[in-house]
Amino acid sequence: MKSVLFKHRSIRKFRPTPIPEEVLRECLEAASRASTCGNMQLYSLVVTRDETLRERLAPCHFNQPMVRQAPCVVTVCADIHRFTMWCEQRDADPAYDNFAWFLNASTDALLAAQNLCVEAEMHGLGICYLGTTIYTAGDISQILELPKGVIPLTTVVLGYPDESPELTDRLPLEAVVHYEKYTDYTAAEIDELWAEREESELTKRLLAENGLPNLAQVFTQRRYVRKDNLAISESYFALLKEKGFFNN
Amino acid sequence: MKSVLFKHRSIRKFRPTPIPEEVLRECLEAASRASTCGNMQLYSLVVTRDETLRERLAPCHFNQPMVRQAPCVVTVCADIHRFTMWCEQRDADPAYDNFAWFLNASTDALLAAQNLCVEAEMHGLGICYLGTTIYTAGDISQILELPKGVIPLTTVVLGYPDESPELTDRLPLEAVVHYEKYTDYTAAEIDELWAEREESELTKRLLAENGLPNLAQVFTQRRYVRKDNLAISESYFALLKEKGFFNN
Repeated sequence: MKSVLFKHRSIRKFRPTPIPEEVLRECLEAASRASTCGNMQLYSLVVTRDETLRERLAPCHFNQPMVRQAPCVVTVCADIHRFTMWCEQRDADPAYDNFAWFLNASTDALLAAQNLCVEAEMHGLGICYLGTTIYTAGDISQILELPKGVIPLTTVVLGYPDESPELTDRLPLEAVVHYEKYTDYTAAEIDELWAEREESELTKRLLAENGLPNLAQVFTQRRYVRKDNLAISESYFALLKEKGFFNN
Repeated sequence: MKSVLFKHRSIRKFRPTPIPEEVLRECLEAASRASTCGNMQLYSLVVTRDETLRERLAPCHFNQPMVRQAPCVVTVCADIHRFTMWCEQRDADPAYDNFAWFLNASTDALLAAQNLCVEAEMHGLGICYLGTTIYTAGDISQILELPKGVIPLTTVVLGYPDESPELTDRLPLEAVVHYEKYTDYTAAEIDELWAEREESELTKRLLAENGLPNLAQVFTQRRYVRKDNLAISESYFALLKEKGFFNN
């Protein structure tokens, strides 16, 4: 019998049913049990249930309906602010306002986020990560009043599912796993790893809809295009500096 | 009955028993079921079991004994290389060699890593994340022959536990969870959140051993000191550029 992890699908339609307080708390506590660098817990989870606030967050996520529909929106943040305050109040010299600690804090935050999601799914909740978070991290910071030393990394919407989508396909396991060392791919191997997906009905539909000759171009010309990628890189890196995560 | 997530403790002593092939595969498959940006799976898991190679990796992790002792060392990498190859072979213009996609790929990689760990613990395995990975990411890249577009983020050692440590304490849940918006801490709240830990026997022992007046100074003067933090920030950021994750 496979574990709950094998049943994960992102949920994008939610019932309005609120999450019982004790279930939500259990999910958040499970998050806090994740591994954390030096037991420093360099993250904050901002749990937004208020409708007006979710309404304000929605445009930051390109008005994806889940933000208004899901009863609970969790903005996952790297947080060196709390630990730094603690140090400063004890006459200790923190020095965590640099890139190494953005990495450590991000790792802490994302492991906690995944625990939150796994626990949520064990309770019959559905989740979806919103990658839009890094596109508009500055606006989200303002709405949620994040102080210096706190930066959003991703967002999880959660609630009871109102849809039951199929499992998404994945590349064959050999695509992402390397034994002993990294074994670089030959061109033929790349073709083979993507073959099944490229031949799928979903891909055929996408190519017809987009008038493009292959799936890779759907990614590069429609979904994640150069201009946006560069703009997001610049705005997020500027925010990283502004938030005090890059005093190297 | 609380879930497996509530039983996690980092394991630092392992039995030499190898992990059965089918158990390891199930853990890796569980990793691949984690949420991933646009179903792009921008990560690679390098699974090192060979003793000679683990021996070579050990100094990168400051010779922590787990690297030699645990039968399996998984180096978790952000990977834009594989997807970029796929795009280039299809006459698509990738543009994922920038900071935004370091963030997306890191997120993918860390969610997969946490799934790997949760599944491993469900099978009675023990795990420990090695934060040392970012200190020596360049050396690790050489040993594991990581190409451009692939960068190590963290490492997970796994195997059957040869110790049964207590659960580690955590800050009270209110320390890391904010409702609706971020509520900044008062100085008194910070004191309160850390009070229990600061008064613990473990802390008293650490202060005596280190000859320091408080726990915060153990962190700032012994564990994670300014000079090292800055050196790691610089070396990792340089590697990020070298590996082609910062062409903004």
